[in-house]
Amino acid sequence: MTISTATYEQRRENVRKRLKDRGLPPLLVSFAANRYYLSGFELHDPQCNETAGWLVISPEGRDFLLTDPRYLDAARRDWNEDDIFIYSGRKYDALKDFFKSNSISALAYDPKSINIFEHEKLTDLCELQPVTGLVEDLRLIKDEAEIKIMEESCALNHKVYELLQPKLQEGKTEAEISWEVEQLFRNNGATGLSFPTIVGVGPNAALPHAIPGNDKLKENDLVLIDMGGRLGDYCSDQTRTFWIGDKPSDRFLTVKEQVQEAQMAAIKVLRPGLPIQHAYHTAKAVFEKYGVEKYFTHSLGHGIGLETHEQPSVSPVAIGELKPGMVITVEPGLYYPDWGGIRWEYMVLITEDGYKIM
Amino acid sequence: MTISTATYEQRRENVRKRLKDRGLPPLLVSFAANRYYLSGFELHDPQCNETAGWLVISPEGRDFLLTDPRYLDAARRDWNEDDIFIYSGRKYDALKDFFKSNSISALAYDPKSINIFEHEKLTDLCELQPVTGLVEDLRLIKDEAEIKIMEESCALNHKVYELLQPKLQEGKTEAEISWEVEQLFRNNGATGLSFPTIVGVGPNAALPHAIPGNDKLKENDLVLIDMGGRLGDYCSDQTRTFWIGDKPSDRFLTVKEQVQEAQMAAIKVLRPGLPIQHAYHTAKAVFEKYGVEKYFTHSLGHGIGLETHEQPSVSPVAIGELKPGMVITVEPGLYYPDWGGIRWEYMVLITEDGYKIM
Repeated sequence: MTISTATYEQRRENVRKRLKDRGLPPLLVSFAANRYYLSGFELHDPQCNETAGWLVISPEGRDFLLTDPRYLDAARRDWNEDDIFIYSGRKYDALKDFFKSNSISALAYDPKSINIFEHEKLTDLCELQPVTGLVEDLRLIKDEAEIKIMEESCALNHKVYELLQPKLQEGKTEAEISWEVEQLFRNNGATGLSFPTIVGVGPNAALPHAIPGNDKLKENDLVLIDMGGRLGDYCSDQTRTFWIGDKPSDRFLTVKEQVQEAQMAAIKVLRPGLPIQHAYHTAKAVFEKYGVEKYFTHSLGHGIGLETHEQPSVSPVAIGELKPGMVITVEPGLYYPDWGGIRWEYMVLITEDGYKIM
Repeated sequence: MTISTATYEQRRENVRKRLKDRGLPPLLVSFAANRYYLSGFELHDPQCNETAGWLVISPEGRDFLLTDPRYLDAARRDWNEDDIFIYSGRKYDALKDFFKSNSISALAYDPKSINIFEHEKLTDLCELQPVTGLVEDLRLIKDEAEIKIMEESCALNHKVYELLQPKLQEGKTEAEISWEVEQLFRNNGATGLSFPTIVGVGPNAALPHAIPGNDKLKENDLVLIDMGGRLGDYCSDQTRTFWIGDKPSDRFLTVKEQVQEAQMAAIKVLRPGLPIQHAYHTAKAVFEKYGVEKYFTHSLGHGIGLETHEQPSVSPVAIGELKPGMVITVEPGLYYPDWGGIRWEYMVLITEDGYKIM
């Protein structure tokens, strides 16, 4: 299952329509995941401060891919060669000529992905108009092909957990488990991880952002694992918390039940039209019932797709409503610094009439 | 070998001195590698559009680490708890209170790592003054501890090539070789790769940015490998081009000799005071002697350290001179689309009186 050339074209048509409807000039697409979503060209930039290229999507229909010589061949695979512009050496001098010869005198741009330096350079070349979320609003709703790929990506995550569980044995370090996770993903088809794996033993599990270290799994202790891989470009993200040994403590069982109750309560209210922050507050209400809400220290979840973290954020201050085709994580947790933490996470698709746990 | 707390403090003192000398307000450090260089806190942001936190380095001496609740514990390991500021929910509302209570009315910032959205939000809170390269200028010159770590990181790269060579056998795909490289780095101590490994068989080697695919190594053909790992946080970067089989073609030998001659010619002129672009032109002159300069399509190299690509760029339009303590790559190549390409790369340290190949 891959995204077809026709789909990339259709997505650009959707952008074009929005530009026309709003009377906007051509859109400069500078954010990597947005660029990839509209072209299939380079999902990642080489570094956060180094771009692999920009798109220009114009309301009148001629779209350009601007990149440097390293990417010429990759560009040719994804784009009409006549509409590829290669800059090298002094990028903005080259762009000046390009804008002039293509009569580009104004550009819409995303204020979250153009920095002050770039903005100043571009201001010398054309008029700039900030436009927020124009491509993100499209990425928010996954189409059928995307959902199919995400289901496969999510299924791989489930499979990796199955393969991993017998390996969760006393004496292994967090770092070793983390490397096992990566090898299992890669050896089963993932092109990489979607984010660095979190493995937290005992009290380390109380850190939502535990970096796997040299602490070892112990009999009669817990371990929290948060992991994701990329399959067909799309990310997965699942957290589980395991007890090492066959006699989980009462506390472990109690906290796990509270977390899972909060998770299922939040999932059951998911449907098109639900104010997104309501999902967060539904989970929190369960924790409030048990008087443990202050140990739930983060958002309930986030959108996921080409990036691990994308819109919508499922936070207490989230704006907007759920819509069919959104894929979000639902991952409440309770964290006790001296003891540990439990988090449980599912990826959930919003359907026409409710939800589907992936 | 690790970077000591005292070193981080000294680096912040160096920033402080530069702020005072130039009469600048406190510096907002937003670029991940700069933040890490000055604090040891989080080398990577979770995503390019999501920060793990900012530093504020003030000329008067009280420095702050601003981050979100996920990173509180990590922050405590690297920073005085009284000077950690945690924002959650509405970040800029929180920052408004923080700036007010700490009498921060102006900030210097890096125009290449603050975007238009952030700039607008911050403009509402304080006066902003762009300052370019203040931290990069320090990172440019590696100190003794950094050089020691980089030598270890580079030595691991050499070791991985030794372990990899017997595995370069007919029938293996580029993607399989790439995964072998990653496992060799990880199993020998690297925390990860410094960049996605390039493996190009035959004509694929003519693409400076070849993504490893399903093409297989063939007897009597070439393969170009460009790979790097992270050890002790510092990156390595080495390219080699191998012949599969024991009868390299005359063309392979000739092109390889030209590339290596250009590389050694450029390396031999390296010394403090050399205009950086001169290194590029020295390599190019060798290619011109053979009339093949148009097949050399990229820069000669780049600085390397906490990031794979950092300053200085060793390009035909590079500005500035070499200084002791710089570490650069020297990696000329010749690329023939229908045949393949050869690139050869060393990491080179600029010493007090010349250079040292690492």
